[in-house]
Amino acid sequence: MLIGIDLGGTNIAAGIVDLYGEIKHLKSIPTNSERGYEAIVRDIVKLVFELCDEYGIDKSEIKSIGIGIPGIADKKGNVISCVNLNWNDVPLKIDLEEYFKIPVFVDNDATVAALAEFECGVMKGAESGVLLTLGTGIGGGIVLNGEVYSGFNGVGSEIGHMVIGENFYDCNCGKNGCFETFASSTAIIKYSKKLLEETNEASLLKDEIKGDFTKLNAKLIFDFAQKGDKLALNAVTRLIKYLGIGIGNIITIMDPEIIAIGGGISNAGEYLLNLVREEVEKNKNFKNMPIGRIELAKLRNNAGIIGAAMIGKHGIR
Amino acid sequence: MLIGIDLGGTNIAAGIVDLYGEIKHLKSIPTNSERGYEAIVRDIVKLVFELCDEYGIDKSEIKSIGIGIPGIADKKGNVISCVNLNWNDVPLKIDLEEYFKIPVFVDNDATVAALAEFECGVMKGAESGVLLTLGTGIGGGIVLNGEVYSGFNGVGSEIGHMVIGENFYDCNCGKNGCFETFASSTAIIKYSKKLLEETNEASLLKDEIKGDFTKLNAKLIFDFAQKGDKLALNAVTRLIKYLGIGIGNIITIMDPEIIAIGGGISNAGEYLLNLVREEVEKNKNFKNMPIGRIELAKLRNNAGIIGAAMIGKHGIR
Repeated sequence: MLIGIDLGGTNIAAGIVDLYGEIKHLKSIPTNSERGYEAIVRDIVKLVFELCDEYGIDKSEIKSIGIGIPGIADKKGNVISCVNLNWNDVPLKIDLEEYFKIPVFVDNDATVAALAEFECGVMKGAESGVLLTLGTGIGGGIVLNGEVYSGFNGVGSEIGHMVIGENFYDCNCGKNGCFETFASSTAIIKYSKKLLEETNEASLLKDEIKGDFTKLNAKLIFDFAQKGDKLALNAVTRLIKYLGIGIGNIITIMDPEIIAIGGGISNAGEYLLNLVREEVEKNKNFKNMPIGRIELAKLRNNAGIIGAAMIGKHGIR
Repeated sequence: MLIGIDLGGTNIAAGIVDLYGEIKHLKSIPTNSERGYEAIVRDIVKLVFELCDEYGIDKSEIKSIGIGIPGIADKKGNVISCVNLNWNDVPLKIDLEEYFKIPVFVDNDATVAALAEFECGVMKGAESGVLLTLGTGIGGGIVLNGEVYSGFNGVGSEIGHMVIGENFYDCNCGKNGCFETFASSTAIIKYSKKLLEETNEASLLKDEIKGDFTKLNAKLIFDFAQKGDKLALNAVTRLIKYLGIGIGNIITIMDPEIIAIGGGISNAGEYLLNLVREEVEKNKNFKNMPIGRIELAKLRNNAGIIGAAMIGKHGIR
């Protein structure tokens, strides 16, 4: 059995996972990230022991532990940067291996989710695939020849920070024009707010939120776009334009067999998928250019736990 | 012995190359691309036979032939698209193997140049490297784990067509904002021309060309920038800004061990290199982020022939 841990800014979710990626038992606790690194490490240890107890297996049956983090780890399992948790250069792998005495593997959350999609999701059987998780930001995960690809220093596949244009607000990273400032849920909310503030035209979306911008979310905007609201449609069209540019760039550079779209925005399903496919097709570098398939991710919320378990499986084999 | 052929829009250059990448004998003929595919294939065959005769070896001593093309080939060696030669979907590998009865390999010219830099240039010994050739356009070549990477359909590593902003003119490919419209020699010439047309200020560069825009070239603009001419410096600064964004994107996505800069613009040498390194450092996604080395390419004009020979070597081993 394997343990997969999805370490998020809000919750730490852990699961006992078999070699085929099936979750056998799940448990989740709040992260309370303000407590700092040591307290969270202690909680992770406790969580793993509780998980084994509850499922009724001995710790010796666990072969490895994988952790997906909302940040960047180097190849030695040190977390180089994790903005949400305010972690910089912490030796997560070493610290956890000291407790557990079994191999621990640490990688970016979108990277492990991509591995989950490769092992038992939409990328299954593919030679290469890129997963984009369109949520608060944009996460990127790359699988090449059956293994995750994070680059020489482990800082690659950060596709959300690829610069693709000029935007009216800067990215958290300090740059202007990052992919995630155009095509994440944060991006579409900010742009819709801007449109709502600037327009005097009638809008169903405007009526709905009644000036309370905290009511804006990506689902609402997509729903109103599908109902034909002009303002919401304008915001969705802009997101699709830049999603097309970003995916076009991935094809131009990496040319993967599959590009999978996950994260909250992907809940817009076939409506989103059809618009994106059309946009990417329109923007090919040349007409008869063969390109990979664009699909929706399959594993949704559990991709993080399954993928984390799978980096453990890949690490120990 | 190997044969490497650098098929360009102006010349076809071919060389007999040993397994270590040393060119033993060279010969070059004009392409005359308007004659079409069949005539050029016949010329390539003739050129290879002449090359062997002149060097005094029998054709049986040649193990493979590699060809770098200014376009895109699929994995079967069919040229999917080659704008300069006006080729679309031509079976170059099959046609040449019919003549030579030895293995023939076809790949993009920047891709083979990257392999040359990996085998005997600045990327030697590196786990991964990306070569950017900054010339009329921008070519991209990717080497991962010692092998060229062109993606699932063979259309990847076309880094010059990655969209990185909005520009005042469209790319040949039909898109707006391609990397090569900001950071190639064509790009800096077009932007300098625009500045010269729009300004009334004194400029040494303006005095130099005396209204004859055909005199503008990248070398002249870089030379005048180094002399402190404000207009030329403005054009170089813009090129460096976007070169920084493009290289930053390569790091953000691929994180290679080395990024090498070749092509005509790279003749600006250390002056260019220092500006680029500074710009990339300034734009990192986070402060303590480790990144690969940025270097000048080493093999200059012969990279195409050496690299073409090397794809043959890799193909037959």
